[in-house]
Amino acid sequence: MSYNKAPSITAETINPRVKIIRYAPCGEIVKHAARLEQEIEENPASIPFQEIIYCNLGNPQVLGQPPLTFFREVLSLCDNPALMDRDEARALFSPCSIRRARRILNSIPSKDTGGYTDCRGIKCLRQVVADGITARDGFPSTADDIFLTDGATSAVPYNLTEDNGWGLEIFEVKRCLEEARSAGLTVRAMVVINPGNPTGQVLSVTNQEEIVEFCRKEGLVILADEVYQENIYAENKKFHSFKKVARSLAYDENDLTLVSLHSVSMSYGESGRRGGYMEVSGVAANVKDQIYKVASLTLCPNIAGQILVSLAMDPPKLGDESFESFDKEKEQIRSSFCKRAKTLEKAFSGLEGVTCNKLEGALYLFPRLHLPSAAIRAADFEGVSPDIFYAHRLLDATGIAVVPGSGFHQASGTIHIRCTILPDERKIEAMVARLRAFHKAFMNEFRGSQQVMNDLRR
Amino acid sequence: MSYNKAPSITAETINPRVKIIRYAPCGEIVKHAARLEQEIEENPASIPFQEIIYCNLGNPQVLGQPPLTFFREVLSLCDNPALMDRDEARALFSPCSIRRARRILNSIPSKDTGGYTDCRGIKCLRQVVADGITARDGFPSTADDIFLTDGATSAVPYNLTEDNGWGLEIFEVKRCLEEARSAGLTVRAMVVINPGNPTGQVLSVTNQEEIVEFCRKEGLVILADEVYQENIYAENKKFHSFKKVARSLAYDENDLTLVSLHSVSMSYGESGRRGGYMEVSGVAANVKDQIYKVASLTLCPNIAGQILVSLAMDPPKLGDESFESFDKEKEQIRSSFCKRAKTLEKAFSGLEGVTCNKLEGALYLFPRLHLPSAAIRAADFEGVSPDIFYAHRLLDATGIAVVPGSGFHQASGTIHIRCTILPDERKIEAMVARLRAFHKAFMNEFRGSQQVMNDLRR
Repeated sequence: MSYNKAPSITAETINPRVKIIRYAPCGEIVKHAARLEQEIEENPASIPFQEIIYCNLGNPQVLGQPPLTFFREVLSLCDNPALMDRDEARALFSPCSIRRARRILNSIPSKDTGGYTDCRGIKCLRQVVADGITARDGFPSTADDIFLTDGATSAVPYNLTEDNGWGLEIFEVKRCLEEARSAGLTVRAMVVINPGNPTGQVLSVTNQEEIVEFCRKEGLVILADEVYQENIYAENKKFHSFKKVARSLAYDENDLTLVSLHSVSMSYGESGRRGGYMEVSGVAANVKDQIYKVASLTLCPNIAGQILVSLAMDPPKLGDESFESFDKEKEQIRSSFCKRAKTLEKAFSGLEGVTCNKLEGALYLFPRLHLPSAAIRAADFEGVSPDIFYAHRLLDATGIAVVPGSGFHQASGTIHIRCTILPDERKIEAMVARLRAFHKAFMNEFRGSQQVMNDLRR
Repeated sequence: MSYNKAPSITAETINPRVKIIRYAPCGEIVKHAARLEQEIEENPASIPFQEIIYCNLGNPQVLGQPPLTFFREVLSLCDNPALMDRDEARALFSPCSIRRARRILNSIPSKDTGGYTDCRGIKCLRQVVADGITARDGFPSTADDIFLTDGATSAVPYNLTEDNGWGLEIFEVKRCLEEARSAGLTVRAMVVINPGNPTGQVLSVTNQEEIVEFCRKEGLVILADEVYQENIYAENKKFHSFKKVARSLAYDENDLTLVSLHSVSMSYGESGRRGGYMEVSGVAANVKDQIYKVASLTLCPNIAGQILVSLAMDPPKLGDESFESFDKEKEQIRSSFCKRAKTLEKAFSGLEGVTCNKLEGALYLFPRLHLPSAAIRAADFEGVSPDIFYAHRLLDATGIAVVPGSGFHQASGTIHIRCTILPDERKIEAMVARLRAFHKAFMNEFRGSQQVMNDLRR
């Protein structure tokens, strides 16, 4: 018998597929930011700033965005239904929050929010989501196609065209598809994020129609990440779901398989609540059975998330007591996003060697950096790509955490960073001043060293 | 260009690994129960019962178990912190719920419960969990080893010994390990569910020590599913975590890798809230980095679940206003479980050809059925195993949904069903009467047909 065997789980023995995963928004930069945060706490004098400004992740409430009152009222009543039977509750909650909480509780077979639900989510809440989609698109959605989920995720590589407002060129997608097919891959789906992450574009209907036609011809599923559908700032742009575009082209479930993802994380900032849905249309019943089975492995999505996504898809209507305050709060959030987007857009565009597209939607700017060649060599010397080099320098000097563009399959030879538009309005001016000072010093340092190297070469 | 390609996602083209997954507690029986439920709604006269009694899944609150008041008060205050600033709140909430909610909110950097948290969960809540484990085991746990999760899951095949109170025989585990290794598999971990699912046993400390010694010698990680740690009914049994047993044997983190899972689903019935934790001890830092990375892919566990698991590991203490009522509610649930377990145990044991072990812990009975050979042939004729045949007949005749034992790797040649002890006390007598009547008719039917076949043979 062998004693004291080496531990069976080591960095060498774990699944190699795990090792190759990279998730940039929670990657090295964030770990380094956490170390700096600890350092600020323990030894504040050693760090040239007092707090980390997390611009790496679309996480509005952590940066000060308030939650919507109606959402939280309904949630707290569903958690603690005894409140509704008390007279005091009338002073504490809007009548429409109480009505909504009652309706939700009555729609749950056990009349409580503690048990496992159907693995697709509570049927009545799925119906609410389907009705919300129907109202949004003008084309029918059914509860049977809705799977409530703990939030939303995905990604697939193709290059967007920066010069075309980050529009999507079908010839580029076709090139990628053909390349993949000739490499022996079977391509089954195309992922589209609209409004776009990290590029902030809102696709034109024409562009969406091209994508629908293309996917139909090539037999590809459209996996539409539509989590930013409420985050649109460009006056002349509007959200159209891929399902709406497909149905408008008279394509039905027999023509095309569509998956649409949405969540309460981005538009409503309830990221940590993990509420979302997936609408699946045009899949065979036996495939849907398999999706059901996979969903059942984690038993059910969390109930608070289920409730929130039903509220997002069925907000207070005209006549409901919360209608005006809900709309006002939502508009405040939206206009504040607009304002902050403009401030940061202007700040980045004003930096030497930086170009920055206008933000049409979503929560991110994706400025392109043209850095001195000495900076690129310095990055190379440290064994990292120039975007990572720049992002680390920025974090160390200012406390601003952004995500290097290489985490988002940026076009080869280009340098980008992704920066959320979420810092609190009261803090954004100070942040911009620090960004400007850092960038100037950075450029001077490497311009300088370039001069030195040029001098040496002569 | 090819038009109208076949859909790319069909039952034939989906990942074959998805197709082979089976998850019995949410499998065919449940789908059939849902169909019957719909039939009851649409055409009640066509079905011989008025409701489905879901004994397939450990889902206490759906079957009428009330939630713990303290949990729900804290949750509703964290959802809607504005309540705490109102005078009316003092009449609606226990002071210790208000204190706890404030403490939780203050421990979150953004002072709100909407944003993404650290992907392992909020640091202060992880500390609360670690402190709770330390108090439970008498051996230290640290927040760095805690990952909060959306619930808990796992499974690995080995045979338990029914005659030994479902104890675990090390020679049987060794046989499985050797069989797997000689088949070329690399075995890395042993999963132990204690208290046991589906077999309801609470392992003796001696048995746990054997497992720890075995895993240490063989270099196996112990993956301990300890979600039923609060569900113990046998007077002479107590829960000991595998970590406590290992530390008591003086094995530290250098000797053994341990993973322990716990959740608020079973002991507290808050299944749909999806709150749990994973304690990982004795893994190298670079392996923990990989676990961190995988956790970061889903961004963070849901916040309501995080809060609940912190409450479960740090319940009201003597002196807190909720202490007595919390303890009373908890004891009511426990004693009701005991009562229902005894009623169902007695009912199953009283059935012809059925033996049923005493329930020591967890939420399930796993009675063994000895069916007439004609019933086994009838099952074979329908192309299903006898346990599935029996479970379907039971459901169709009585509305009682149980899980066939073949979903739990029962020993070859044996027939079991898994039945939760969760039906409401007020309904359990009627359920038992239906079970008895069904079983008697079933046995008579097949004894009868056996007689007929025997007669024919003569």
